Parts: sequence; C-alpha cells; structure tokens
Amino acid sequence: MNAINSAEWRIRMADGSFENLAPESSPITRMYLSFERFLKNLILIVRRFLEKSWNIGKNEPRKVIHCLKVGIALSIVSLFYYMRPLYNGVGGTAMWAVMTVVVVFENTVGATLYKCLNRATGTFCAGFLAIGIHWIANQSGKRFEPIIMGASIFILASAATFTRFIPAVKARFDYGTMIFILTFTLVSISGYRVENLLNMAHERVSTIIIGASLCVITSILIFPIWAGEELHKLVISNLEKLAESLDCCVAEFFSVSEDTTTNTKKMLAFKCVLNSKASEETMANFARWEPAHGLFNFQHPWGKYLKISASMRSCACCIEALTSCINQKDQASELLKNQLTNTCQQVSSSTSEILKELALNMKTMRKSSRMDMLIQEKSNAIQELETLMERLSGLLIIQPKNDQEKPVIRTSSTNVIPLVEIIPTATFASLVIEIATRIEGVVDVVEELSKLAKFKLEDVDMMIKQNKPVIKNVIN
Amino acid sequence: MNAINSAEWRIRMADGSFENLAPESSPITRMYLSFERFLKNLILIVRRFLEKSWNIGKNEPRKVIHCLKVGIALSIVSLFYYMRPLYNGVGGTAMWAVMTVVVVFENTVGATLYKCLNRATGTFCAGFLAIGIHWIANQSGKRFEPIIMGASIFILASAATFTRFIPAVKARFDYGTMIFILTFTLVSISGYRVENLLNMAHERVSTIIIGASLCVITSILIFPIWAGEELHKLVISNLEKLAESLDCCVAEFFSVSEDTTTNTKKMLAFKCVLNSKASEETMANFARWEPAHGLFNFQHPWGKYLKISASMRSCACCIEALTSCINQKDQASELLKNQLTNTCQQVSSSTSEILKELALNMKTMRKSSRMDMLIQEKSNAIQELETLMERLSGLLIIQPKNDQEKPVIRTSSTNVIPLVEIIPTATFASLVIEIATRIEGVVDVVEELSKLAKFKLEDVDMMIKQNKPVIKNVIN
Repeated sequence: MNAINSAEWRIRMADGSFENLAPESSPITRMYLSFERFLKNLILIVRRFLEKSWNIGKNEPRKVIHCLKVGIALSIVSLFYYMRPLYNGVGGTAMWAVMTVVVVFENTVGATLYKCLNRATGTFCAGFLAIGIHWIANQSGKRFEPIIMGASIFILASAATFTRFIPAVKARFDYGTMIFILTFTLVSISGYRVENLLNMAHERVSTIIIGASLCVITSILIFPIWAGEELHKLVISNLEKLAESLDCCVAEFFSVSEDTTTNTKKMLAFKCVLNSKASEETMANFARWEPAHGLFNFQHPWGKYLKISASMRSCACCIEALTSCINQKDQASELLKNQLTNTCQQVSSSTSEILKELALNMKTMRKSSRMDMLIQEKSNAIQELETLMERLSGLLIIQPKNDQEKPVIRTSSTNVIPLVEIIPTATFASLVIEIATRIEGVVDVVEELSKLAKFKLEDVDMMIKQNKPVIKNVIN
Repeated sequence: MNAINSAEWRIRMADGSFENLAPESSPITRMYLSFERFLKNLILIVRRFLEKSWNIGKNEPRKVIHCLKVGIALSIVSLFYYMRPLYNGVGGTAMWAVMTVVVVFENTVGATLYKCLNRATGTFCAGFLAIGIHWIANQSGKRFEPIIMGASIFILASAATFTRFIPAVKARFDYGTMIFILTFTLVSISGYRVENLLNMAHERVSTIIIGASLCVITSILIFPIWAGEELHKLVISNLEKLAESLDCCVAEFFSVSEDTTTNTKKMLAFKCVLNSKASEETMANFARWEPAHGLFNFQHPWGKYLKISASMRSCACCIEALTSCINQKDQASELLKNQLTNTCQQVSSSTSEILKELALNMKTMRKSSRMDMLIQEKSNAIQELETLMERLSGLLIIQPKNDQEKPVIRTSSTNVIPLVEIIPTATFASLVIEIATRIEGVVDVVEELSKLAKFKLEDVDMMIKQNKPVIKNVIN
C-alpha cells in the first residue's frame, strides 16, 4: 500500500533522479508511521537483547544455574509468609529474610559467604553498640537523649564511612561496615520510639540468620561456583594463553606458520592476561572466605595467584612489544633472520614449555621434576643465542652524510646490511630473551605457591628424592 | 622486674650461648603475660591503623569531607524520628529513608545519582508489576493465589538475576535490577497479608524519595566530588606520567641524568597507566549519570576517555619493555650509542612534547594549533633516526663456529662491534620509534574527543582558521 502510494507521487528530476512529491500526510498517518517505526525499533532491540542473552546462557550455563538458584532461594524464603505456622514464628520481620537473600546471594560461594559473614557481624556489632548507647542516653534524661543519640550517629557513621577508604578494610569488610552504619542508625532511632527494643533486635537477627544460612546452603549445595576455583582456572588458562601467544609470535615472525587468521587470534591471546587484573583481585578477595573445597584447603594462599598474574603481566607487556616487531618483519634482513631462526625458536619454545609445565603443575597440584631440567634447557638456549650473537660481529660503517651509496664489500662470509634491516630481528631476539628471563619471576612465585599449598612431588621421582637426604645423612 | 628474673635463671652453655632455666611460671603469671602480650599487640595494631588512617585523611582531605557528609545526611534523616510532626507524616516507614541514605550515598555525585535513579526506577517498576500480578492472583481465587505469586517470584527473580550478567545492563542498571527483585518479592509477599497495599507502597516510595533527594542534595551542594572530573584529571595525569616516564627512560639509557633515585620513581610512573583500567571504567560508568558541571556538559563523551586510556596502555607496555633495555645498557656499544643519542632523544622529546600538549589541551579543553606542528616534528625526528640507521650500515661477519677471535679490521670510519653490543641500542631505538608511532593512536582519540566535546580553538589562530574556508568559498 505504502509502496504504491509513493510510486504514484514520484517524479523524475532534471538530473535523472526521482523525487517524492507525496502530499503532506495527515497527523494521524504520521503518528501511525512513527508509532510503527518505534515498534519496529523496539522489537529489534528486544530481539538483539534476547539473542545476546541466549548466547551468554549457551556459553556459560552456570550463569543460568545461578539465576535458578536465586529463584529457588527466594521462593523458599517467601514460603515463610505463605505458611501460617512459620509466619507466626518470625512475624512481620520476615521481610529481613527476603532482603538478606536478595542482597547477599552472589554468583560465587566466596562472595556469598563474604556478604553473609559481613552482614551478620556488622548487624551484631552495631546492634550491641546501639543498645549500649541507647541505655546510656536513657540514663541521662529526656533532655540529653536526642543530643547523645544524634551525636553518636554522626560520629560513628562518619568514622565507619572513613574506614571504608582504608584498602585493607575495603577488601575484607566493606559491606560489613555499610551494614554496621545501617543497623546502628536504625536501632538508635527505633530505640527512641520502639519500646521492646531487645525483642526487635532478636527478631531481626534471627531472620537475617535464616536468610543468610539459606543462601549459604543453596550456593554450596546446588552446583557451587567457587571463587577460588575460578581464580585457579583463570590463572592456568592465562599461563597457557601466554605460552600460545609467544609460540605464535615467534612462528609468525619467522614465517613458519601459514594460517594467519587463527594465528592472529592466538597471537593476541596475551591481551587476556593484561586485562584480567581487576577480576583476579575480586576473586582472590572472595576466595579467602571459602572453606576447603576440591584441591584447596581453607586459607589456600590465594594472594600468590595475584603475584603470579603480576609476573605474567610483565611478560605479556613484552609480548605486546613483540607484536610490533612482527609488523616490521618485511624490513628485516633475511640473512640475519636465517642465522637466528633456530636458536630464537629454541629460546621461545623452551620458555613456552616452562609456561605449559607450570600450567600443568598448577592443574594437577603437583611439583614437576621436569621443571629444573626445563629451566636449564631454557638457560642453555639463551646462552646459545647470546653466543651466536657474539659471533655475529657487525662491522659498523659510518658513512659520511652526503654519501648515500652503500659500500660494496662482499666476501664469502661477510655481508653488508644496513642497521635498519638488522634492527627488527635484533629487537625481536632481545625481547624474546627478555621474556625468557622474566618467566623466571613466574616460576619463582609458582614455586612459593607450591611450597605454601604443599604441592606433592610427582610419583616416580618422589621416592628417589625423598630417600636421597636420608642416605646422605647416614653417610655423613 | 622481668629482666632481673630472667637474668637470675640464665646459665652459660658449653658453646658459649646462654639459656634460660627459669622455673615453670604459675598459670596465673602465664595468663597475665599472655594477656599483656595480647594487649601490646592490640595497641600496636590500633596505632598502625590510626597512623594509616591519619595519612589517608591528610593526603586526601576530600575523603574526610565525604565522611562528614554521610554523617550530616544521616543525622538529618534521623531527625524525622525525633521530631513529632515529621514522624507523624511519614510514620514507621522512616526506616526506608535511613536505609536509602546509607545504601545510596557514595563518594562521587555520579555514583550517588546512579544508585538513586536505579533505586527509584527499580522500586517503581517492581511495585507496579507486583501490584498488577497481585490483582490477577486475587481474581483467580484463594487456591491459585499462592501458586501464581510463588511462580511469578521464581520466574521474575531468575530472569532479573540473569540480566545482571549482560555487560550493558550490568554497567548501567546492576543496582536497579537488585532493587527490582527486592521490591517485587517484598510487595508480592506483603500483598498476601497486608490489606492496605497501595498505602504501604505510597509510604515506601515517598520515604525513598526523601532519602534519595537528601543524598543527591548533600552530595551536589557540599564540596561535590564529580566522577567525570576525577576521570578527566586521572587521564590527564596519566598522559603527563607517560611523558615523564618516556623522558626519564631515554635520559637514563643515554646516561644524561644523574639523580637515580628520583629518576627510577619517575621512570616507573607508567605503571599507574597500566594499573588504572578498572578505576577508569568505574568512573566512566558513574560519570554518565552526572549533570553538566564545570567544563563538562551532560553526556560528555566519557567513553572516549576509556579509549584514550587503552591507547596509552599500549604505549605504556612499550615503555615497560624499554625499561628492560636500560638494565642492559652497560653491554651496549658506546660508539653506536653516541651515534644515536641525539636523534633518539629528539624522537622521544618530541613524543613526550605531544603527550604534554595533549594533557594541556584536555586540561584547558582547547584545541591546540601547535599539535600539527608537533606531529610533523615527531615524524621528522623518526624519519631522521631511520635515515641515520640506514646510513649506519653493518658489515655482518659470520664467523665459523670454532673461531672465537673477532676480526680486527679497522679503518677511520669502520668499527667492529659484535651484534650483542648492537642489540641493546638497536632495541631501544626501535622501541622508541614504536612508542612514537603508537602515540598517534592517543592523538587520534583525543582529536575525536575534542570534536565530540566541542573543544574551542586557541584564541589567536581561531580567527584565522575560521575565516579561511569562508574566503575559499568566495573565490570558488
């Protein structure tokens, strides 16, 4: 209908184009059209939103499970209202149980525990303090009571807010401090009007405990997501990504590999390492609250994971610089490249081998006996590359400014290469050595972690290694 | 007393050391001692905590002001309880006003607005929906009512929780979604028991509005801290730090500067750029909610700041790699270093000049007419360095493996340098060029920002530049 309408009113212009000469549509038509456009846009937005949601759900089904868990917990807690005997038990304060569930239920067990414990402690401390101050205010007579209460609210709220800026408090007790302020103020001002303060406090605490324990039970028993385990997996995958990136970069520079599209994706895997700082810190904070689970004890040294990541990031920075060399690889002298290819690849492959071994060690929570050998191999490879570069002497010819011709000196074993063609390969080799050196930082922290977390030695070597010092002592 | 006691019971051992032979102390003494130790530790911890707090307060007085603001807002809101006429107005639901103030009051105006608007919208939507569903459930009879209510809670809570995983929703409406779930559940289950549902909803909404507007007024009127302004300042200071780091690295490598301690600190300033991603993202999220303030309009393009930071981080990564060259500077051949010093310094100084100019442009919100000139200067410097490196030809001599002696060929203008001594300087120069190239990414994004935020041209040039196209059109 619309198309016919517009065709009817179309005229051909002087330059051959068409122009619409449709009559001005009536306000109703315009309103209808704009409404139609609005509806189409709305449908489009909703469709995109649903598609995105569907993808998230498909890729990470655990997120969907978490949502169902929240639904279950809330449905259970609302039963308190529907069932008369339960309702009479906790009374109107069942609201606090609902509120606790909504506010406290988080994706990971650690986050849920952090919030539950903080909420319980904050409520308890603030409740006690508020009742104490209320008692004092009560003793000092009707005239001073509001003044004492007001002043205590102002001072304690300000002080508690201030502690939230202290990093150590922020990491562990941020939520607890907020709940402290909230409870203190509520109990203080209620005390001024509510007669049966202790009863109210008791009801509130008991409903919070009901809500909190419901959350903890649901989050631990139904498909638990442990912050510690997530952190562990993330660090392992980052180690693997770093190894992959390094391998790909070297292969790309020396043009060994051909499949460029998947290669570029793998090459840039190190960016995950650079970008995961914030999420790692959050996870480590939550992991501290988790009980023993899977391979991890309570108080597993989660802080070390952050150190591992910091060391990895310093390597990833070098890989980032390495990628810029790849853009200049066409300038690089083929001769020098051929000379260095093998040794450079040896350095990088022994480095990525170490990274993969570290990832495997962490995955199995075992100390590898191969590690010392791999590190030795890597040091040898670096040594070899450095010796090779020492043997490759450069006869640096400094040409006078106006003489643009290059000197033509050629023997069987000498080749004139302008510095500009040496640089890409030289930079590349130097960065590969730097990465190989920085990896030792990662190895050291993983070693510290393995000591603190009491990684077991691998089966066969364990016997030999454990016997050795015994024999030695006997001989001495 | 203690010291005398222990000296009395000390005996000299065979190897010359002393050992205490004090008699086993009584349980009371031990308890007293351990209590004393505990007390001392406690005092030490408290003292350290207070010292740390004092330092935070001294360094950032605005944090102290924020705490006082929270105190003031809470004291005002608790007045509702103390004053009888106000109390009678809002009744027992004054609790919601207190809760809103505690939960919603954040450090920056943007964060406070984000939470207020989210809380208000979430409460409103959920309230409406819950009342609607409650009406439907009411119509379907006593038997189906709990089933409909329970199912709606389960479905809506799960769905709303799921949307919190979608990045776009999480960035803007995370808090609102939580409040939606909370309010929906509370109103749903209250509706089952409370008769006067609409009245309750009205009271709750009005107290939330009282609390929220109190927060917004306090946070905007008393020493406001704007998230946008903070982000703006952070990005500017990061630009300056990057320039400083680059200058220091180059000076350090070519050993121009002498004061090493302050230099090392300045050299590592780029680490701030690498580590500020998370805080920048948070600030940009909050800045979106802020009204026009200072130099910024409402809906100032805050997203561009994140892009500027991303470009800066890629430069900072190269500087990180640069610092590793500095550790090898003793290996570097003096001859080559001397050849490149001036040009390298030119490249780096023109690059840092651009960074400083960008920082200045952003600070004054003006487009500099010098920028094109500076970029030209930088390109010339890069060109010069590359020409110089082309003129510095290297006569690459590949020695046979067993021949460890270096060839002794010396003329007036040729010098034999092993590749290993060329590499540090070559890598350094190549990284400096890379940084100088990557800076263009920062320049481009700042250019985009300046267009979107309508930066003004600088005074003198403005007239000329604006007239030019007019004249051109007339001539055409």
